[in-house]
Amino acid sequence: MKLSEPIYEGKAKRIYAIPQDENHVLVEYKDSLTAFNALKTGAFDKKGVVNRNITSLIFRYLNRNSIRNHWIRDEEDRFSVVEKLSIIPLEVVVRNVLAGSTAKKLGISEGLILKKPLVEFYYKNDSLADPFVSDDQILMLEIATSEQIAILKHQALLVNAALQSLFFKSDLTLVDFKIEFGKNKNNEIILADEITPDCCRLWDVKTQEKMDKDRFRRDLGQVQESYEEVYKRLMKTLEGEL
Amino acid sequence: MKLSEPIYEGKAKRIYAIPQDENHVLVEYKDSLTAFNALKTGAFDKKGVVNRNITSLIFRYLNRNSIRNHWIRDEEDRFSVVEKLSIIPLEVVVRNVLAGSTAKKLGISEGLILKKPLVEFYYKNDSLADPFVSDDQILMLEIATSEQIAILKHQALLVNAALQSLFFKSDLTLVDFKIEFGKNKNNEIILADEITPDCCRLWDVKTQEKMDKDRFRRDLGQVQESYEEVYKRLMKTLEGEL
Repeated sequence: MKLSEPIYEGKAKRIYAIPQDENHVLVEYKDSLTAFNALKTGAFDKKGVVNRNITSLIFRYLNRNSIRNHWIRDEEDRFSVVEKLSIIPLEVVVRNVLAGSTAKKLGISEGLILKKPLVEFYYKNDSLADPFVSDDQILMLEIATSEQIAILKHQALLVNAALQSLFFKSDLTLVDFKIEFGKNKNNEIILADEITPDCCRLWDVKTQEKMDKDRFRRDLGQVQESYEEVYKRLMKTLEGEL
Repeated sequence: MKLSEPIYEGKAKRIYAIPQDENHVLVEYKDSLTAFNALKTGAFDKKGVVNRNITSLIFRYLNRNSIRNHWIRDEEDRFSVVEKLSIIPLEVVVRNVLAGSTAKKLGISEGLILKKPLVEFYYKNDSLADPFVSDDQILMLEIATSEQIAILKHQALLVNAALQSLFFKSDLTLVDFKIEFGKNKNNEIILADEITPDCCRLWDVKTQEKMDKDRFRRDLGQVQESYEEVYKRLMKTLEGEL
């Protein structure tokens, strides 16, 4: 593939314009791993490929479950074509089990199973380290309207229900995950970005072993093996279904 | 006054039971000043007296404006009798102008006038340094119900409107303030705690000079003089009215 300069480069992906196609962009999944707002960095060979594969599998599964998203088709190993969107600068986090920053902030030990899923918003801004924001702060910042916030929460809970079922069939507990949304030219809100072990906490149902980026964050080893195992399990669960 | 051991001691106040009176407690305003979750400490002579005086004046003014609160009557110089409540562990902050932690968190310079007042909740917990929480986190923590959160927001905005008017007549801009609420034995939500320059940001309308605890936080000097000036101005504004 002949690539021009990316129009955007993030910590884990590059985005390229597609000549003569205004409605789509090309996503490249990089091999790099970052944590703690990029204070810790790493990589593993083919990480971009496995993350592209996991995301595409999940986005196709969500499409089949009537959850619209930006995925259009895959290109060679670490590339996908997706709908061109204007990304809403909010990280939408859904938690089923308490872990990570919210557990720490509230002084609750990791592992508390929540009575109902908790939706949180973080303002996507690297220089501010993505601060946690309330609905009222989102309104004040004019990032989204009340109606749009309600759509984001509703969509996030639909994604959560679909993912919980998919991961549970794959012997994985979906502890929490982060997703992002964008607006298309008709101002419709559409699920975007990626869904991978970089932005989900996944615990093995039987052993409780972490199968996600926490292995990298906490130096637990076997990072690549875990990502590949997640992909293998999802493939098996969805075999013949997509 | 003969005092027993306090039933509660906070950073700025002590609370005492009143013998043979289950429905009320005695509040003592201390001379101490603390900031940054008590990492910085100080005091000034008669600070407790001036804060008691400001709070009582404001609570009487709010009563006159149909905003119920826990104040019953004053006792000698630094004491008040108030309704006995079970305090809801939330610091309710209302902002008219952006300053302090939220300005910093969102990378906005101090002084932005908000289009409408912003209500925020902080989980009152010294060992966690009073973390900022969303409505959904409050529900998850079972601190308050959705209905109670709506009452807190509504009450906070009513208090804000009344205080903005009072302070404006006193040549002070009410930048932001923190209040607390409690529940009485009938489960009614009632404004409690104090309203003083310790928990309000007040800027002189003409000179923009800070007239509140930021003078202590930022080592600006004239702390005592500013608190006394606020009291003097409120007295003048309310002269003959209460």
